[in-house]
This record gives sequence, C-alpha cells and structure tokens, in this order.
Amino acid sequence: MADEVILLDFWPSPFGVRARIALREKGVEFEYREENLREKSPLLLQMNPVHKKIPVLIHNGKPVCESMNVVQYIDEVWSDKNPLLPSDPYQRAQARFWVDFIDTKVYEPADKIWSTKGEVQEKAKKEYIEALKILESELGDKPYFEGDTFGFVDIAMTGYYMWFEASEKCGNFSIEPECPTLMASAKRCLQRDSVVNSVPDPEKIVEFAFKIRKIYCV
Amino acid sequence: MADEVILLDFWPSPFGVRARIALREKGVEFEYREENLREKSPLLLQMNPVHKKIPVLIHNGKPVCESMNVVQYIDEVWSDKNPLLPSDPYQRAQARFWVDFIDTKVYEPADKIWSTKGEVQEKAKKEYIEALKILESELGDKPYFEGDTFGFVDIAMTGYYMWFEASEKCGNFSIEPECPTLMASAKRCLQRDSVVNSVPDPEKIVEFAFKIRKIYCV
Repeated sequence: MADEVILLDFWPSPFGVRARIALREKGVEFEYREENLREKSPLLLQMNPVHKKIPVLIHNGKPVCESMNVVQYIDEVWSDKNPLLPSDPYQRAQARFWVDFIDTKVYEPADKIWSTKGEVQEKAKKEYIEALKILESELGDKPYFEGDTFGFVDIAMTGYYMWFEASEKCGNFSIEPECPTLMASAKRCLQRDSVVNSVPDPEKIVEFAFKIRKIYCV
Repeated sequence: MADEVILLDFWPSPFGVRARIALREKGVEFEYREENLREKSPLLLQMNPVHKKIPVLIHNGKPVCESMNVVQYIDEVWSDKNPLLPSDPYQRAQARFWVDFIDTKVYEPADKIWSTKGEVQEKAKKEYIEALKILESELGDKPYFEGDTFGFVDIAMTGYYMWFEASEKCGNFSIEPECPTLMASAKRCLQRDSVVNSVPDPEKIVEFAFKIRKIYCV
C-alpha cells in the first residue's frame, strides 16, 4: 500500500517550509493542504489539539507536529535517501544543539522585527544580528552547517533565509555586510531544487510581511 | 581506552538531573562536577560558550549541551542497554513532541511559581496545572509515558517531579488532587534506582527554593 502523506501548512511559514523541503529532499509525494490560520480547519484542530499549529504531517492517518520533529521523523522513516541528520552521535547532538539555538535565539528577534517598531524593534534587530553572527562563526568556511551536504541545520535556517528580504525591509537594515558567509550559504541553500520548489517568491513574503505589520504596528 | 565522562551540573537543577538519570540508566561511570552558577568555572564557559549553562556532558573532551540533547546523545552512544527513546519512528516523534511540550508549557509556569508572587504567581499556578492536566491525559492508564518502560518523557518530567513539593509550598497549592494519575507515575519514577541516586532530598530543594525566592520576591 502506498503511503498517504498530507501536509497541513501555511505558505509563508518559516516552519511549514521545513517540512516541505524535507519531504522533497526525500522525494516523498505528498498532498499540500493550505490552512487558513484565522479559521483553522477541523482537521488541523483534530490532528494538533495541543498547539493547534501548522505544520502537521499526517502519515497514513497519524499526525506528527512541531516542524523540526516532523523533519526528524521524515529523516527516520525515509532513511534510504539523502540523510538529513549525520549518522555520528556527536555530530547529531551538535546539529540538534544548533537547531535549538535557531528556534530560540533566532526565532524571537526575527518575529519582533516585523511585528514591532521603535526601541523594541531596534533591540530585536541587534539580537537578530548577534544570533546570526554566532551562526556565521559556527558555519566557518563550510558550505553548509553539517559540512559538504545540506542537512538538518540548513533546513531549520532556510525558513529564516526565505524571510531575510522581508526582515531587512521591515527593519530597514542589511544582513549581508554583517554576515557575508552566512549569506553565501543562504544563497546556496535557496538554489537547491527541494528549496526552490518549496519557498514562495520573496516579493510575496515582503508583501505579506507589510500587510501583517500594519495589523501589529498600528 | 575507557571513556572519560564528566558532567558539569548544579545539584537542584531539573535539567542537570536528566543527564544524571540517563547516565545511571545506562550504567555509565562519570565524574560529577558541581558548578557555582554565580561564579561559573572556566571549563563551563569554555565548553558551553553559547549558553554558558549546565548541564554539560564532556565525553572524551568533547562537550554536549542542552539537557534533553544530552539525554538523546547518551541514548545513542550507550545504545546497548536500557533504550530511552522508542525504536519506532512514530513513537520517537511522539516522545520528542511531549518533551518539547514539557520544555515550553511546563517550564515557564514552574519557573514563575517560585520566582513571583501575587497575580503573576496565581496565573502561573493555573497554567502549570493546565499543562500537567494535558500530560495526565496523555499518560492515561500507562505506568510511564512511553508505556511499560521508563523513558525519554519520564526523564524530562522527573526534573519537575523532584520540584513538586517545593512548587506546592512556594505556591501554596496541591498537585495531587488535580492530577492523581500523573502523581502516581511521578512517585513510580522517583523510586527507580537511577532516579533515587540522582535526585536530592526534597526537603533540601524546598529550602533552596525558599532561599532563592527571597532574592526574587522582595
């Protein structure tokens, strides 16, 4: 029996895109279902009753929630192609460490850059650049976080890479002069087939960001 | 060559204890080094320069940080004894989901119960009980979160179980009437050899909690 794979998602989500990319890295056919986050579907509420958030991967009727948990699940189930996590336990622990760093230290300021203004936004921009610089230093001269291959940490960051232009425009600042190496890796990631097919047009994200910014920053 | 395993830890830490329990579940000999969090050791700052937090597991000179990442690393390296995560990818994803829930929805209110008073503390108590009730419902009639065996989610919760008495006394409330099944599982976990040998005397935690509470709630 063929696998039934459904992804409940929302197109500009930096979290949803992680699941899309992982599925495409593995060549898994899936049905994409766009959610309206203002009027969540009964299926989303049923499949993720605790957080009621996208993305949810529904694999043969069973839900997996939380984006990087979904990516890890995809890596473990479709383990025959393009491993996303390294096989060595120490390297795996390092990858999980950096993903956790991204989900705490990058997420919070990134979120505030589009949703706040004035001093709060200035502080968020500073914290965002600081976090990106730590990642730049971890990246070093490697093309991707895990070395020569695109993997777990790159997938976690790609959600932010696709928002870089929107963040810069909402915050009126530039990331590249501060983090040239990270930016080079971002461009490399954004050119991969799995990513090109998963990431929306940056202009549309900019437009979306300014639309929601109007609601948050009255 | 024998493994050199050092744990940088702090005795009342709900996070540090997770690493201690995991090491003892696996029967790994380790050197426990108590940190003074007001004057962190040069070794801690060198081994966890990003967060500068305990626990840090130093395995043959290489650091692993973030408590549940440490537990997962221990499970992967010493894989021949007492598996802590299930082998099935779906069950693993569920376990990781609940650990993430604990680290966000249990952690925040638990932290506020001892560090705040008045309305903020009342709100924290309400949120804490709500989160514990969700865990109670997930536990159902199983002895442990993963079923018949003590595992990943139980280890994550044991740090909070060992603080239950201190939380109740700081917040002047009772957990057992609200969550009898979770409390029964907590007592079961707290009786395990690996846990008995890792968890401090609850009276000492109560004393510690009131001492730091005095500093935070002047």
